[in-house]
Amino acid sequence: MATKVTPRSEDYSRWYTDVVKMADLADYAPVKGCMVIKPYGYALWEHIKDGLDRRFKATGHVNAYFPLFIPLSFIQKEAEHVEGFSPELAIVTVGGGKKLEEPLVVRPTSETVIGHMYAKWIQSYRDLPVLINQWANVVRWEMRTRLFLRTTEFLWQEGHTAHATAEEAQEETLRMLDVYTEFAVEDAAIPVIPGRKSESEKFAGAVTSYTIEAMMGDGKALQAGTSHFLGQNFAQAFDIRFLDENNERQFVWTTSWGVSTRMVGAVVMVHGDDHGLVLPPKLAPIQVVVVPIWRDDGQRTVVLESVRQIEALLKDEVRLKVDVRDEYSPGWKFNEWEMRGVPLRIEIGPRDVAQGQVVFSRRDVPGRDGKHSVPIEGLAGSVQEELMTIQADLYRRALQFQEAHTYAPRDYDEFRQAVSSGFAHAWWCGDAKCEAQIKEDTKATIRCIPMDQPTGHGPCIHCGKHATERAIFGRAY
Amino acid sequence: MATKVTPRSEDYSRWYTDVVKMADLADYAPVKGCMVIKPYGYALWEHIKDGLDRRFKATGHVNAYFPLFIPLSFIQKEAEHVEGFSPELAIVTVGGGKKLEEPLVVRPTSETVIGHMYAKWIQSYRDLPVLINQWANVVRWEMRTRLFLRTTEFLWQEGHTAHATAEEAQEETLRMLDVYTEFAVEDAAIPVIPGRKSESEKFAGAVTSYTIEAMMGDGKALQAGTSHFLGQNFAQAFDIRFLDENNERQFVWTTSWGVSTRMVGAVVMVHGDDHGLVLPPKLAPIQVVVVPIWRDDGQRTVVLESVRQIEALLKDEVRLKVDVRDEYSPGWKFNEWEMRGVPLRIEIGPRDVAQGQVVFSRRDVPGRDGKHSVPIEGLAGSVQEELMTIQADLYRRALQFQEAHTYAPRDYDEFRQAVSSGFAHAWWCGDAKCEAQIKEDTKATIRCIPMDQPTGHGPCIHCGKHATERAIFGRAY
Repeated sequence: MATKVTPRSEDYSRWYTDVVKMADLADYAPVKGCMVIKPYGYALWEHIKDGLDRRFKATGHVNAYFPLFIPLSFIQKEAEHVEGFSPELAIVTVGGGKKLEEPLVVRPTSETVIGHMYAKWIQSYRDLPVLINQWANVVRWEMRTRLFLRTTEFLWQEGHTAHATAEEAQEETLRMLDVYTEFAVEDAAIPVIPGRKSESEKFAGAVTSYTIEAMMGDGKALQAGTSHFLGQNFAQAFDIRFLDENNERQFVWTTSWGVSTRMVGAVVMVHGDDHGLVLPPKLAPIQVVVVPIWRDDGQRTVVLESVRQIEALLKDEVRLKVDVRDEYSPGWKFNEWEMRGVPLRIEIGPRDVAQGQVVFSRRDVPGRDGKHSVPIEGLAGSVQEELMTIQADLYRRALQFQEAHTYAPRDYDEFRQAVSSGFAHAWWCGDAKCEAQIKEDTKATIRCIPMDQPTGHGPCIHCGKHATERAIFGRAY
Repeated sequence: MATKVTPRSEDYSRWYTDVVKMADLADYAPVKGCMVIKPYGYALWEHIKDGLDRRFKATGHVNAYFPLFIPLSFIQKEAEHVEGFSPELAIVTVGGGKKLEEPLVVRPTSETVIGHMYAKWIQSYRDLPVLINQWANVVRWEMRTRLFLRTTEFLWQEGHTAHATAEEAQEETLRMLDVYTEFAVEDAAIPVIPGRKSESEKFAGAVTSYTIEAMMGDGKALQAGTSHFLGQNFAQAFDIRFLDENNERQFVWTTSWGVSTRMVGAVVMVHGDDHGLVLPPKLAPIQVVVVPIWRDDGQRTVVLESVRQIEALLKDEVRLKVDVRDEYSPGWKFNEWEMRGVPLRIEIGPRDVAQGQVVFSRRDVPGRDGKHSVPIEGLAGSVQEELMTIQADLYRRALQFQEAHTYAPRDYDEFRQAVSSGFAHAWWCGDAKCEAQIKEDTKATIRCIPMDQPTGHGPCIHCGKHATERAIFGRAY
C-alpha cells in the first residue's frame, strides 16, 4: 500500500491499472478476461447503482429479473443483432451432465429474451407503456481486457421499454439519455457530451443509438452510457403486438438503455491523479477519514477523546472512517487514504484539541492549499459544505480539462493533431466512407453527433463536402 | 386477474402456482427450469434484500463481486464438493467462437473461486477476518422445477468468511444463523426453527451445516436459509494460509451462508390464502392501497378531493398506491389488491368523507372482522399502528399454525401420522441408516436438529436405541 503508482505522464495505461489495484478496487479473476470487484470497488458501484436506481424509479420505471440463459435461436432472430453479437458469445452446451439439444447463450444483453416475454405480456394498449429495468451480469467474450473498462463479464443495468407509438419511444430514449447525463454530472462529477451515434457505431439492432461521451485524463473518450431507439426491429423479430384503441393489431416500439461497471473506470480516469484515486463525495464509500496525530501516550489520550467527540458529531451525517490504528504513522495513513481517494481528511493533533479545532485536508487540492483549520463547533455543517465544494470543484476541473482538450480544427492536419490529445469538434458530411478513412488515418472514431448543434453548415473535415452536422471525434477506450 | 386461484384444500401445489402467476410475481422463462421475476415479485425481493443487506452490514460485512465462470478444475479440488455439485452443473464449452481449452462452470455456488482469491489476498493474521458477502445469480441444473422454490437459475446472497481460528469461524456461522432467524421472524413474519443439519443433509464440503426451517401452509418444510462451518476443507483445497502472530503458517477457517429467492416462495406459502397473496407489511411492495367509492360524478369529485388529501398525508410515510382508475369498479379493485396481498386497504366513500373518516380493511382478516372506521385526523399514525398490528398478527398466526402441526409422536405409527401433515419432533439415535429408512418409509427427512434441545435422552423414534438429541422430521420442498 505504501508503494507508488506509475505517474500518468509516464504511462497512463499502467497508471490506471496501478490505481485500480492499489486502491483495492478490483483484481484479476482466474478466468481470462474476468475480474473480481473487491469490497471497496463494489461499494463505489453500490453508490453508482443507488444514484441511477433512484432516478429510474423517479421516472416511473420498475425493476425485474430475466434469465441468464437465452436460446441460441433467439439471438438469431434479429439480423443485425446476431451479426453484432455472435463473435462475442459464451455458449453453454452441457447441462446436468447431458449435451443440450439447443445450446444456450449466456446473455450478452437481453433484448431478445425480454422481447419474447413482452410478446406474452403485452396484449392491449392498456398494457403500455412497459417500463422495466434489470440489474444483471452480462458476458461478452473479449480478447483484450482491462479492469472495469472491458471485461468478459461485467455488471450493468439494462432498461427495456415498450410503447404504443414511435414518438413515445423516442421520448423515452432521450429521457434516459437525460437521466444518464444528470447522473454523470451531479453524482460522478463527470462532464459528458450527449449525442447520437453514427450508423457504423450504433448498437446492433437499433434504429438510433444515443450516448454520453466523457473525456478521460489522457484525452481519450469513454462511452459512459447508451440509450437506444429500437424502432420496431425487436417487436417484429419477437412478434410483440398490441390491440390499439381502434382494435387493430400493431407492433410496439421499443427502447433499451444501459450503464455498466465501466462507470467505475470513468470515475478513476477523470478524477484520479499521481497519488491515486480521487473520488467525488457523492459516490465515495468513505467520504471523510479522521486521522489523529500524537507523539506520546499523554497526547494520545487527549487526542483520542476529541476523536470520539468528532466521531459522534459526524457518524450519522457522512460516510465516516476513523483511523485510530496504532501500528501505522499518520503519514502512512495519509498516503493510504489518498491512494483510496477519500475526498476529505480531518487531521487532529494536541494543538488542535487545545484550540478546539481540526484541520481539513482536501484530497483534490494537493499540499498546503488544500488545508485549513475549522472549529469543532458546527463541524457537521462545515463538513457537508466542504464536501459540496469538493464535488463542485471536481466537476468544474474536469469540465475545464475537457474544454481545454476539445479543439475545432480548421483542416485535416489540425484534426490529426487534435485527436492525438483530445476531441475534435468538426463538420462531417455523414458519409460512412469518410468516417472509416478518418479512423484508418488517425484511430479516431465519431464519438457522437452532439445533441447541441450549431445552426448552419460547413465543409466536412475530411472530404470538404457540404456538411450540416458537427461531430465529436476522438480515440476511444 | 378477476379469476380465482385453486383453493388450497383442493390442490396446494396448484394453489401456489396460481398465486405466483395471478399475483404477478413471476413467469416461466423460455429456457426450461428458468424463471422471470416480474416487477411485483422483484420489488418483494428488493425488500428482502434490503432487510438482509442492512443486517449484514451491521454485523461488519461488506459486499463484493466474484466471477460467474469457474474453471472446471476448481470444482474438482474439494472432494465432497465435486460429488455434490457435478450432476447439477451448466458448462460453457465455447467462447468467442472457439472451443475452450478448459470448460467453464457457471457458478452453482462460489466457495471454490472465492477460495482461490482468498489464497491471494490473505497473507497474515492482520488480514483476518475476511467478511465478504456477494449478491449474485447461480445456476444448478434442475429437472423438476417450481417458480421461486426450485429453478435452474436463482438469485441469492452468499457470504464467505475466513478466520484465524475454528472458534471464530464457528461463532460467525452461528451469528449468521441468528441474523437469518431475526430477518425471518421480524421482516418476513415467518417462524423458523434454527438447527443443525444431519450429516447426510449437510452442504457438500461443509463440516457442519446449520439451517432455518420453516413450515409452509401445507405442513411441509422449507429450508429458508443455511449457514455452513467449512472447517479447513476449502482452505486446504485452495491453500488459503496466513502467518500467525508467532510467524507460523496456518490454514484459515472458513464459513459460507446463503438465502435465496426461495424466500419469496416461503412468504407466499406461509401467509397466503384462497384469495391470493398476503404480504407482511415490512416486505410488501405496496403497504397501503386507497380505493375510492362513488356512484355519480358529484360523489366522484367530493371523494377524489379527500383521496388527494389522504395521499398527501401518507405518501411519505408508507409505500402507497392510490387506485383511482375509472374503468374498474371498487369490487374489482378489492379483488385485485387482495390477490396481490396488499396488507391494508383504505376505502373511502361519500359518507366517509362527510364524517371525516375512512374504512380500514385488513388483508389478513377476511370480511367484516377486518374492517373498522378511522378518523382522517391522525391518519398517518393510525396506518403505522395498523401495519404493525398486521405484521405481529401474521407472525403469531403462522407460529400457531406451526405449533399446531408439530407433533411429539410416541411411536413410529404416530410418527408416520405426524409427518403426513406436519413436523415430528422426536428422539433420533444419530445413525444415518435409521434416517434413510425413515425417509424410505415416510418421505420425511431430518429438517434439523434444533439448537434448542431438551436435557436428557430417550429412545430413537425408529430403532428405539438410546438417543441424546431430538430432531425435527418433515416432508420438504
